[in-house]
Amino acid sequence: MLRSISRYLDAPSSGLLVAAPQDDAAVWRGDPIVVATTDTMVEEIDFRVEWPGFDFRTLGRRLMAINLSDLAAMGAQPRHALVSLSLRGTLPAVDVTRLYRGIAEQAHRYGCTVVGGDLSGTLGPLTLTATLVGRLGSARAMLRRVGARPGWVIAVTGRLGAATAGLRLLESGARPASREERAWVSAQLDPTPRIAAGRALVDSGIRVGGDISDGLSREVERFVENAGLGATIDVQRLPLASGLHKKQWPLAVTDSEDFELICAAPRARMRIAQRALARINLPLTVVGEIDRRSGIRYRNGTRLERVKTAGYEHFR
Amino acid sequence: MLRSISRYLDAPSSGLLVAAPQDDAAVWRGDPIVVATTDTMVEEIDFRVEWPGFDFRTLGRRLMAINLSDLAAMGAQPRHALVSLSLRGTLPAVDVTRLYRGIAEQAHRYGCTVVGGDLSGTLGPLTLTATLVGRLGSARAMLRRVGARPGWVIAVTGRLGAATAGLRLLESGARPASREERAWVSAQLDPTPRIAAGRALVDSGIRVGGDISDGLSREVERFVENAGLGATIDVQRLPLASGLHKKQWPLAVTDSEDFELICAAPRARMRIAQRALARINLPLTVVGEIDRRSGIRYRNGTRLERVKTAGYEHFR
Repeated sequence: MLRSISRYLDAPSSGLLVAAPQDDAAVWRGDPIVVATTDTMVEEIDFRVEWPGFDFRTLGRRLMAINLSDLAAMGAQPRHALVSLSLRGTLPAVDVTRLYRGIAEQAHRYGCTVVGGDLSGTLGPLTLTATLVGRLGSARAMLRRVGARPGWVIAVTGRLGAATAGLRLLESGARPASREERAWVSAQLDPTPRIAAGRALVDSGIRVGGDISDGLSREVERFVENAGLGATIDVQRLPLASGLHKKQWPLAVTDSEDFELICAAPRARMRIAQRALARINLPLTVVGEIDRRSGIRYRNGTRLERVKTAGYEHFR
Repeated sequence: MLRSISRYLDAPSSGLLVAAPQDDAAVWRGDPIVVATTDTMVEEIDFRVEWPGFDFRTLGRRLMAINLSDLAAMGAQPRHALVSLSLRGTLPAVDVTRLYRGIAEQAHRYGCTVVGGDLSGTLGPLTLTATLVGRLGSARAMLRRVGARPGWVIAVTGRLGAATAGLRLLESGARPASREERAWVSAQLDPTPRIAAGRALVDSGIRVGGDISDGLSREVERFVENAGLGATIDVQRLPLASGLHKKQWPLAVTDSEDFELICAAPRARMRIAQRALARINLPLTVVGEIDRRSGIRYRNGTRLERVKTAGYEHFR
């Protein structure tokens, strides 16, 4: 089995000197500023093989996507990936192969080599971990959660809420019936990491940002909570995914399934970033503003609304 | 919970610019030649919390040790670690804290900073993954599995068989009764990664080596199998751990629990390496020789012996 997956590892080249598990570890020529992240998906918590339309190749792509999104959230360029899979011995070899194919194709799509990995047996749920290593052009040019100032505007990439709507549909057991429902399910199962957008934000001079994989609301909290600041979100400006009703806006702020980027900057700087993202056909929509009063407020016309939860953290 | 573990993450400094999960990813100043590895431990496969004397702090140290051993096996110097833990929600917070303490203390012992991680819930076995990033002084000075030549001698660090003897004792449910039995159990639960030895081997000019975490026999196979070569192991020269009878030599070659290093080199070069390892008080014992006839033979005096299995690979 290990030999059969080794063909999904990238061959050593001038950049990659050695690919594991050919040796005990992978070896490559390093970059001056390195960015690294690790993220895990656990069966029955993050996905179910019983979902209608579930597919191991898409699962492999998603494992890469959630990790690539963390690199995007720093404005980094992906370089190398290591994957560690804990699989039941009863899993058909064809599923393992499809899983690796999805991992490899997603890595390559974003310019990343798969340099090594580990395959373990488990008696329990499938547990898939990837570690991604990327690079930044400079130690100063990156997106961080610190540094937001009162009066700065907050903007998000893409459209919101589709992934959560897709998750609800999958959990209901219903097959998607319309083009919109298929798009929601696809947003959940096969999200797009915003690598190019993250780099474009950094290149536009944006320095405060992250992804909203723990929920837009939670991410805005992180921007402000240690600075004694707050924020107001204008719910009418939230760019909801196609097919969602405007009353469903809480899907866009509390749930944790979209892998869009969020950032904060002075208004003029944000306009520069909007033009940069327009060039890669991605909307960057201003949805709120940092202010001096602590807490996150949701303004709907003249009313202030309340939302129940504030994003998702395991073991919070 | 995530906040409580964040104190086990190393603070940003000039080398480490950002530690995750403070941001979406960790950022550090890179090295010219990078080595990276990932390895997972799964409950009920690699360990049991029911073992007599089981302790989460030691488990954390072992997670680091098995990954550090892969860096040692390349002759690399550890630099940064990312850990991804999938834990049951019912696991007491004190156990999680002890696990992280063990991870952090083992990392620091070998000069490694813990830069980030991920904590997930699971409904199944505890699944612990670490990814370690290290450095090499040069792209040429490392230990690899390729390059062994006929006539070269094979040598191993330390003593063999204790970890497997310890595993058998743990699985029997018996508490260790003697000093030797305690040492066996300790070799299993709390192995020592041979970081200094790996670097000393490389500095001595050794270029073929690895660790024997998949079994000595399997590792020697890897040295020879793609070159059409073979090897002969002299079982009387195997440096058995204290308390093991010489008849128990198969423990030293087939099982996968020792984290010693093995290497191959011309005899004169090996003598230089032996002197270098003597300076760090670690024996490097010649146990066999590479030869032109394919396959691995075990010579016991004038007899050739057979062993049942040839090491351990998940999903082999």
